[in-house]
Amino acid sequence: MSDTPAADRPLTPILDRVQLPSDLKSLSDRELRQLADELRAETISAVSVTGGHLGAGLGVVELTVALHAVFDTPRDKIIWDVGHQCYPHKILTGRRDRIRTLRMENGLSGFTKRSESPFDPFGAGHSSTSISAALGFAMARELGGDPGDAIAVIGDGAMSAGMAFEAMNNAGHLGKRMIVVLNDNEMSIAPPTGAFSSYLTRLYTRGPFQELKAAAKGAVSLLPSPMQEGAKRARDMLKGMAVGGTLFEELGFSYIGPVDGHDLDQLLSLLRTVKTRATGPVLIHAVTKKGKGYAPAERALDKGHATAKFDVATGTQAKAKSNAPSYTSVFARALVDEAGRDDKIVAVTAAMPDGTGLNLFAERFPRRCFDVGIAEQHAVTFAAGLAAGGMKPFCALYSTFLQRGYDQVVHDVAIQRLPVRFAIDRAGLVGADGATHAGAYDIAFLANLPGMVVMAAADEAELVHMVATAAAHDEGPIAFRYPRGEGTGVDMPERGEPLEIGKARMIAEGKRVAILSFGTRLLEVMRAREALAARGVTPTVVDARFAKPLDRQMILQLAATHEALITIEEGSVGGFGSLVAQLLSDEGVFDHGLRFRQMVLPDTFIDHASAEAMYRDARMNAPDIEAKVLEVLGVAQIGDMRA
Amino acid sequence: MSDTPAADRPLTPILDRVQLPSDLKSLSDRELRQLADELRAETISAVSVTGGHLGAGLGVVELTVALHAVFDTPRDKIIWDVGHQCYPHKILTGRRDRIRTLRMENGLSGFTKRSESPFDPFGAGHSSTSISAALGFAMARELGGDPGDAIAVIGDGAMSAGMAFEAMNNAGHLGKRMIVVLNDNEMSIAPPTGAFSSYLTRLYTRGPFQELKAAAKGAVSLLPSPMQEGAKRARDMLKGMAVGGTLFEELGFSYIGPVDGHDLDQLLSLLRTVKTRATGPVLIHAVTKKGKGYAPAERALDKGHATAKFDVATGTQAKAKSNAPSYTSVFARALVDEAGRDDKIVAVTAAMPDGTGLNLFAERFPRRCFDVGIAEQHAVTFAAGLAAGGMKPFCALYSTFLQRGYDQVVHDVAIQRLPVRFAIDRAGLVGADGATHAGAYDIAFLANLPGMVVMAAADEAELVHMVATAAAHDEGPIAFRYPRGEGTGVDMPERGEPLEIGKARMIAEGKRVAILSFGTRLLEVMRAREALAARGVTPTVVDARFAKPLDRQMILQLAATHEALITIEEGSVGGFGSLVAQLLSDEGVFDHGLRFRQMVLPDTFIDHASAEAMYRDARMNAPDIEAKVLEVLGVAQIGDMRA
Repeated sequence: MSDTPAADRPLTPILDRVQLPSDLKSLSDRELRQLADELRAETISAVSVTGGHLGAGLGVVELTVALHAVFDTPRDKIIWDVGHQCYPHKILTGRRDRIRTLRMENGLSGFTKRSESPFDPFGAGHSSTSISAALGFAMARELGGDPGDAIAVIGDGAMSAGMAFEAMNNAGHLGKRMIVVLNDNEMSIAPPTGAFSSYLTRLYTRGPFQELKAAAKGAVSLLPSPMQEGAKRARDMLKGMAVGGTLFEELGFSYIGPVDGHDLDQLLSLLRTVKTRATGPVLIHAVTKKGKGYAPAERALDKGHATAKFDVATGTQAKAKSNAPSYTSVFARALVDEAGRDDKIVAVTAAMPDGTGLNLFAERFPRRCFDVGIAEQHAVTFAAGLAAGGMKPFCALYSTFLQRGYDQVVHDVAIQRLPVRFAIDRAGLVGADGATHAGAYDIAFLANLPGMVVMAAADEAELVHMVATAAAHDEGPIAFRYPRGEGTGVDMPERGEPLEIGKARMIAEGKRVAILSFGTRLLEVMRAREALAARGVTPTVVDARFAKPLDRQMILQLAATHEALITIEEGSVGGFGSLVAQLLSDEGVFDHGLRFRQMVLPDTFIDHASAEAMYRDARMNAPDIEAKVLEVLGVAQIGDMRA
Repeated sequence: MSDTPAADRPLTPILDRVQLPSDLKSLSDRELRQLADELRAETISAVSVTGGHLGAGLGVVELTVALHAVFDTPRDKIIWDVGHQCYPHKILTGRRDRIRTLRMENGLSGFTKRSESPFDPFGAGHSSTSISAALGFAMARELGGDPGDAIAVIGDGAMSAGMAFEAMNNAGHLGKRMIVVLNDNEMSIAPPTGAFSSYLTRLYTRGPFQELKAAAKGAVSLLPSPMQEGAKRARDMLKGMAVGGTLFEELGFSYIGPVDGHDLDQLLSLLRTVKTRATGPVLIHAVTKKGKGYAPAERALDKGHATAKFDVATGTQAKAKSNAPSYTSVFARALVDEAGRDDKIVAVTAAMPDGTGLNLFAERFPRRCFDVGIAEQHAVTFAAGLAAGGMKPFCALYSTFLQRGYDQVVHDVAIQRLPVRFAIDRAGLVGADGATHAGAYDIAFLANLPGMVVMAAADEAELVHMVATAAAHDEGPIAFRYPRGEGTGVDMPERGEPLEIGKARMIAEGKRVAILSFGTRLLEVMRAREALAARGVTPTVVDARFAKPLDRQMILQLAATHEALITIEEGSVGGFGSLVAQLLSDEGVFDHGLRFRQMVLPDTFIDHASAEAMYRDARMNAPDIEAKVLEVLGVAQIGDMRA
């Protein structure tokens, strides 16, 4: 694990005295201010070594210090939405010694994680879950479960997701004490979109930040107690001072804000008051700057959202050498190409224009590209509506986020056979983002839907053809998946050509064993084939291209002409291999014997590491494929080849 | 198909002249008022024959007439949210001659359905999809797709779901012409819950309905045109008159209301103005009464939400004879029983307290029962928060609605191994509600999640034990599924006893073929076994109980001692049968031959009919099982036994 010599590290005399948040209780407010500065420097230093999410953490340094100083964690529970912003929190909660292992194999997770620390009461990775979780903790407390306060810290982008609204609606109704800190930095990953975001902007552009004193007084009035003469007056003043917040008030929350999220004194005063007096749901609207305090991040368009390792002085990022274009960019260019020829093609993204490559599409066809915000449920049904209205929508989502729109895929797209095209990025294991971001289930949850076509690209040239296939397929829904990262460097076609639906392609004819590969493991399969040649085994290799519909004819032919059949896919059980097993059993192929194996992701959540290391743990790299072939043929091996 | 003699039907002279909505254009407003009365009478008459959803349709009779009279359907698109309220719409759009076949086999669907009529531009069944779909149509129109207006009609309960909020947020941002009619009847299926609902109530209790004139003037002002001197003044007046709506205005909608949804003149005037003048998103807040105009429905607690066939004069419903308790009530009683012994048990429902039986739980333990509204995403993560806070949450949802919370099951429950108990009602095919409500996918989408325990009850006694098993299982998430409808009438245990996790139970020992049943097909399997005995075939029958973890030992033992193994489950491919196939292939059982078959739901969406008829179409009733056994054994059959 790489590390920086201590000499390069910032001086952090106060931070050095903090082992756990309880150590903050003995610090003066002045010392807390210095602690915040040191924490910011330490965060920058750490991420310069590890890479990772920088901007989000820098935006909440003061908030992190204030929350831990005022509340009693881990008895009180801070639930960081998404979790990108949790690095400063990890530094303060006993994990500073491992902070330079962030997102590395066996290192700290880039998100909060229950199994990592009692200070992470609820893990994350996906957005907009924190209010629901906090409400769960709050109601558990009310019923005799774990005591303590529940505090959700959620960004403005995440707040605009439907799930957050559902939680606010329920929390306002239940009326019990809980705290939501709206961390409003006008940024999710991309600049946020949607009317809700404009609403927040109006809230803090209509008037100046509240003065510290007024805010504190306002907070006092949260619960007008009969013992307090001035309570009503103070509350009326708050009403006058607060420049908005009606929307939250209507949902049953006491709204306080906006406050300057980088003014530690103001935060401390406000949180102390809230801690003392709140009895119902409270929303604190804190305005922050993503990337705050580190000029290169503040200047960056994405405010230093995710970064490679970098030089602290200049902000220059270490460039990863790139041999081949990323699948994401290949998809985007292919889609732009198709859209240039067909003006019915439109694109939908859920707050990931950069991540999905659709920024490229938006530049070229601004009116035909829709960023709907963090709103996958809506994204899918909106795409279904576009399709019903005669357009050809490409809905580009990460595999793991498509899970959010699963019911809409079933109910609005598949049942109605609407030709929505699903471009599924980050299929399979994704590396540093770990288990929460693994694209493990899409094959299984799509391929059992009647009328759905499900493809996986074996390389970036195949991806181009699959974009063309999807564009041409107007009979019903179609999905194609591809992984995070670079392609394999194959020659690229001039333009995509629609594939025949349900037809596999023969890659290499061989004997005895046929390997049916679905997706980018094909490269590993071919590596395994090379290694096997030395042992005199030459498997037939087929790129299935389609999990649905299956190439029944070819699969049955392979089964008839080989001793063994092995399927491999970057997904869980229930997908491609299961459909092949169903075909083989339906057709009675097993009746008289067929050596059949399915290589799928194992029945565990695999922790973050490099993608290659994760596939090693999943036993799906070339040596594992080689071993599986030998095992199925009964060729003697000396123990486990990897042992 | 049963039908009522025409003599019993109401006199409907105006309605008789209406074949299609275009016929409304020639009617005077006075005639339209009479048409609404006739339409109401016809709706009551039809549902008295078919049973079905009565209250919702009665609440929108005037709205249905007004929308079709003012807009040009099907060029303009009316999208009814959920679809329960679409019976009057179906009567007006060329389907009156089939209205007494509602929800019957080969009859009209109880929901809107694209394949049924061009007047159903977007089908439904699940709630809160209409605004997303309407926005899709609106944006398609803007880009040269289908022309015409897009009008979503959505109830207040459905509006409070996150998905609707996501769609409003996006629609307000895009700013294009579209119309949302908020049909506010203070009822979804149960009385609505949540802060949003209180907000709506405040809107119309703060002040009286607007006068027709003011409303019309207000609507005129939607788009202050420079040509119109009085526009600004009218708009200011509207602001003064409108008693609220800020929340919608903040989201970028022009808010008009509240208006009396049963005052046809007011509706016509308003819609005509909106049609002429709207350029951006408009929300019309119409207040209606569910069950309006039919006293027995208005009096009913659920406002005639769903009804059996009934006598029109008295409202008396034909009682279905009941031999055994419903699975739903067995679940509810078992849970109340467990909760009486363990005060950590809490229950969560998403707007279905009656449907899930949790109303019983709420009566007994009001503080421990949470109805979170139509909000499955929140329901699941809220339950995860409760579990993290030390409680034992039972999250009771229909299988088809759990699809809405799928990502939350993966991300918040399974990855964190939190002991949330999923009580999955309406598993398998559900009858009259058809394809949109089929519980087809839960086995597949749960059983491939690491650490998840997945059970299915074979009968109502088993269900009691599974409730006890779930209550006792604190190591991680656990799910149990059971169908809609009555149990099998088995003897009931005094109290539930926790089952051993991952252990199947032997039902009947036999020879040659082993049938592994997961769920309530067990009864059909036993019927098939009886029929097979006459042919000298006596299969072994096992109730698997668990799809995950599998009883590996028993399954491998069965495979070793039988010629053939057949799995059967009320779910799609990818579930129990696929997991068994994986086990058998992993263990090399197929290498030397095993006749193996999986009986799963077919790769089609099965239309509404009785559940038995749907399982007949799915080929999963006793005769189908019998045929499958004979086929796998190669016993001669004369053609298809069912032909």
